[in-house]
Amino acid sequence: MQSAEAKFNKNSLLLTLRGYSSAVSDMEQTILLPSLLRDVPSDEAWDCEATEESCRDLYSNYLTLKAIRNTVESSLILLDDHKAKSHTALNKTLEPLLDTDPETLFRFHLRGLFSVMSDLTKKTQSLTVKYMDIIGVAY
Amino acid sequence: MQSAEAKFNKNSLLLTLRGYSSAVSDMEQTILLPSLLRDVPSDEAWDCEATEESCRDLYSNYLTLKAIRNTVESSLILLDDHKAKSHTALNKTLEPLLDTDPETLFRFHLRGLFSVMSDLTKKTQSLTVKYMDIIGVAY
Repeated sequence: MQSAEAKFNKNSLLLTLRGYSSAVSDMEQTILLPSLLRDVPSDEAWDCEATEESCRDLYSNYLTLKAIRNTVESSLILLDDHKAKSHTALNKTLEPLLDTDPETLFRFHLRGLFSVMSDLTKKTQSLTVKYMDIIGVAY
Repeated sequence: MQSAEAKFNKNSLLLTLRGYSSAVSDMEQTILLPSLLRDVPSDEAWDCEATEESCRDLYSNYLTLKAIRNTVESSLILLDDHKAKSHTALNKTLEPLLDTDPETLFRFHLRGLFSVMSDLTKKTQSLTVKYMDIIGVAY
């Protein structure tokens, strides 16, 4: 069990999750006045409708990135969550595609998690840099 | 960083991955003669076409479960893999659904990973019990 733990500590899924958590901590420590981000339009591609809260301004982005970090760090909640919501609309839509092969499904979700965490880490770093711009400090 | 590590070690994604790895180790230690599983039809619902190798017999299931464990334990390979294959047919199909909101995407993949790992752990335990049946030992 000890050697299994050592393996997992080295694997990159853990490093990816930890990297995101670390980027959000940096963001929090840098952004001492989050309210300065209010009403600053987000030019970052969030790929979402302008009516959604997380797309409105940099302050909304800041809150969303923190909320996701909390989910990353307390994914015990998600485990219960998945039991209750195992048949969401999204899963329903994907059933014909994904129920075919558990190995493909595993690779698909692992790859997807890497991809989205990497994307969110970049967004967090970009938001931190924008705050520095706003307060006129070179990063 | 230390406290972040402590948090991740406790979170259930890690426990889920470790639980699967542990189930496969038990299976390997129990199944001393994997060849006894050859040509034993799999009545486990693998949700796949009978022509796929992993559905043919219990021996194929055994090999697949071990291969997935190896991927779980060395997901560094997958990180490179995702860069090269970020636009697979599967991702292409899902683009209109999933490009809308990174938080939803994150929750979807995390929940999906829990679900598939939980499923694979059960399959591994079930295969181990079947082997014990074959050799006539009560588990």
